[in-house]
Amino acid sequence: MPHITLTTDEPGIRGLFRFRPETAGPLNALVEVLLRAESTLTPGERELIAAYVSSLNECRYCFSSHAAYAAAQLPEGMELVEQVRADLASAPITPKLRALLGIAAAVQRGGREVTEEHVAAARAAGATDLEIHDTVLIAAAFCMYNRYVDGLATIAPDDPASYAARAERIVADGYLALLAEAQRRS
Amino acid sequence: MPHITLTTDEPGIRGLFRFRPETAGPLNALVEVLLRAESTLTPGERELIAAYVSSLNECRYCFSSHAAYAAAQLPEGMELVEQVRADLASAPITPKLRALLGIAAAVQRGGREVTEEHVAAARAAGATDLEIHDTVLIAAAFCMYNRYVDGLATIAPDDPASYAARAERIVADGYLALLAEAQRRS
Repeated sequence: MPHITLTTDEPGIRGLFRFRPETAGPLNALVEVLLRAESTLTPGERELIAAYVSSLNECRYCFSSHAAYAAAQLPEGMELVEQVRADLASAPITPKLRALLGIAAAVQRGGREVTEEHVAAARAAGATDLEIHDTVLIAAAFCMYNRYVDGLATIAPDDPASYAARAERIVADGYLALLAEAQRRS
Repeated sequence: MPHITLTTDEPGIRGLFRFRPETAGPLNALVEVLLRAESTLTPGERELIAAYVSSLNECRYCFSSHAAYAAAQLPEGMELVEQVRADLASAPITPKLRALLGIAAAVQRGGREVTEEHVAAARAAGATDLEIHDTVLIAAAFCMYNRYVDGLATIAPDDPASYAARAERIVADGYLALLAEAQRRS
């Protein structure tokens, strides 16, 4: 049961967005830019970073959500998400994405855990400054979203189909459009 | 030296805002709502939560900044910030603020660290659901800002006067106005 009395029974962060629309706006604007705006990293790759950090933070709602959104946008689907989660070192991904996920894992432990070696490895694998920046900020942002969702003890659905259904709508319309639609309905 | 090549020599998160204006907008909109918008928690109390979490994350730039912003808006000034940082249990603050800072410390460790006991203690001390919500989100957000600032190895000035000077401008004009001004100058 959530720690506070929410105004709807929507799960996870969605119930918090309805409780506090003033913070929902910037929180959705941030994730829309980071995960869906024009970038040399694909939306699937960026959702994979979000899912991986959420897994490291053991946030079930955020991991299930962003794993579904990544799977829906990666040619290799959920199998790749599970391989990355199980063992980053052996997962069948590009050296660049592996290095960026290594940076994300360091950020999850703490900002000061990111070393010059992490960054040099990413750069040697072809990562740009903007890709390194965005990877650090995606990982840092999910350290926020994960703490927000679990710190208020929100509910995470058990049924994988509910995350897959949401993934279709996120892929089609994006975070900001779905937030606006939820706010119109209320 | 920062891990990436920034476009200005502004310290800490300010250099990152100039490097990536697309994310600077939502990041500043979020902190403006959380720390300065209408609330039953004073701006000084909310800046104190931000400073305390930044201290726990050992983020020197963010701690120095928000400690200065808190001190500028609390009657007890920097002495109280240092007392909270040194020992939350004995610091001369209200039971409600102590309970909320206890929730913030739990969030800093991880979302699942916030227990029903933390929340019950805050509620018994008079905290509302909205105050509990905002405390969790402020703490979670600073787990992001701290990781962003240190994950990219930005520079933190040594001189306390530079943070105090910035505090005057934040108190007078706020985060969004200073961001807009910096963007106009560039």
